Amino acid sequence: MTQPIIQIIITAGGTSESIDGIRKLTNSSTGRLGWQCLLATICDFNLKKQCVRIHYIHTHSAFIGTLDTADEKLVNFIEADTNQAVYHSVNELTTQQKIDYFIHTMAISDFHYKFSISINQLCETISKRIKYDKNIDCESIKEILKNPENILSTETKLSSKEGIYMAFDPAPKVISLIKKNNPETFLIGFKLLHNVGEEELVQAAQKLREKNNCDMVFANLLSQTDNKGHTGILIASGQIIARPIGKAPIAQTIVRKMQEYRTKNI
Amino acid sequence: MTQPIIQIIITAGGTSESIDGIRKLTNSSTGRLGWQCLLATICDFNLKKQCVRIHYIHTHSAFIGTLDTADEKLVNFIEADTNQAVYHSVNELTTQQKIDYFIHTMAISDFHYKFSISINQLCETISKRIKYDKNIDCESIKEILKNPENILSTETKLSSKEGIYMAFDPAPKVISLIKKNNPETFLIGFKLLHNVGEEELVQAAQKLREKNNCDMVFANLLSQTDNKGHTGILIASGQIIARPIGKAPIAQTIVRKMQEYRTKNI
Repeated sequence: MTQPIIQIIITAGGTSESIDGIRKLTNSSTGRLGWQCLLATICDFNLKKQCVRIHYIHTHSAFIGTLDTADEKLVNFIEADTNQAVYHSVNELTTQQKIDYFIHTMAISDFHYKFSISINQLCETISKRIKYDKNIDCESIKEILKNPENILSTETKLSSKEGIYMAFDPAPKVISLIKKNNPETFLIGFKLLHNVGEEELVQAAQKLREKNNCDMVFANLLSQTDNKGHTGILIASGQIIARPIGKAPIAQTIVRKMQEYRTKNI
Repeated sequence: MTQPIIQIIITAGGTSESIDGIRKLTNSSTGRLGWQCLLATICDFNLKKQCVRIHYIHTHSAFIGTLDTADEKLVNFIEADTNQAVYHSVNELTTQQKIDYFIHTMAISDFHYKFSISINQLCETISKRIKYDKNIDCESIKEILKNPENILSTETKLSSKEGIYMAFDPAPKVISLIKKNNPETFLIGFKLLHNVGEEELVQAAQKLREKNNCDMVFANLLSQTDNKGHTGILIASGQIIARPIGKAPIAQTIVRKMQEYRTKNI
């Protein structure tokens, strides 16, 4: 009897949303933790002599190391740079096949760029409307703010002579797709926050877990992510189950624990 | 008699402005053209047996290759990631010493991030003010738009539940410092545009030249910047003087021509 192939998706890096072709809104993530998760996965499943297929969705700028030729054959590298491209790849993969584990380290933009407008222009548009209709209601102002006239051209680079507003809309959440398409997938979510205490970090991790049905969450602070001392907390079943230190130990802990906890739940 | 040391500043990479510690507004530039300019400079001045000192101001993410130990000693590497950091480094270097050549390949953010605000919040603030003062003038609206209440906290990561505006102010131009501090410096400016024709590109290059007193401008389009076929036009004394193809040939042409044209003008 042939062994079933274990299918794993790992995402890595930080996406970017183009503003004007030259400027971008980016999410800081080097992709190094994602790469360590790939190495730990290959190593662990090789040791157990289990067949594994890893779909590695990464941004163009994410760190990519070298693999042995034999290991390279286990990996399907997929480049995706924007929220939209990642959404598309994840949706396609998770609807086409059964995914056993999803290690979602990628920092994906939560916003889509809409337009830029000079603050002076926006002010004039609002003033004109008020002169014309002194009883203008909140909804009409919101309509102006959401779709103003005289937005700056997105075809060419923005000029920088005066103050501007850039408008962004919330982007669809990639993470919400995963369990929707594959309820059986064991999902490891990642939460990165800045300038909060551990209690707030744990709360945010629990919220991510509940909202997207994560089976495990690794939560960390920006100040804890440097190459040598990267640390954070691994949460499963509402409990902190590990505090690994270093990117490789974090990845190894995640890969070991995800298998333990999946077996428990089956 | 000891030879005078030729002092050169080269800038490379694209700066980024932090939004909330995790998100950034970045300028796309790999720093590879800057690196080629460094190599071409070292090679050319070594060949002529002229003493040279190169101050290489680069961003953290800019491409950095390897140099021979002897060549490395010629270079003063300075890391600067934001508009402000680059401004500071350039101001310090150009006020402390006489700079012979300035090759300014870096793509520097023209904007500083100010704040983010939810579009709903901004709408409510404006509505309230209008109810209170139906004859509100343009200046008062501008004041609200520039300094609204209820801006989103910059201490923590932005939430992405609703549409937001991010406000940016024009940042001081680093290029304007160079000739102001060192009128004798031979300045090579770079212009990168997107989706315009050659005529418009030449016009933009001339404008850059006049405004900042550039002695030479290399102008290119985003679509022309890929690794293999990078091309563009080199402009001096109001004329197109070269159309090199490839990053190394572009750099070599710039380094050769800057010396020719400087000698002409002395």
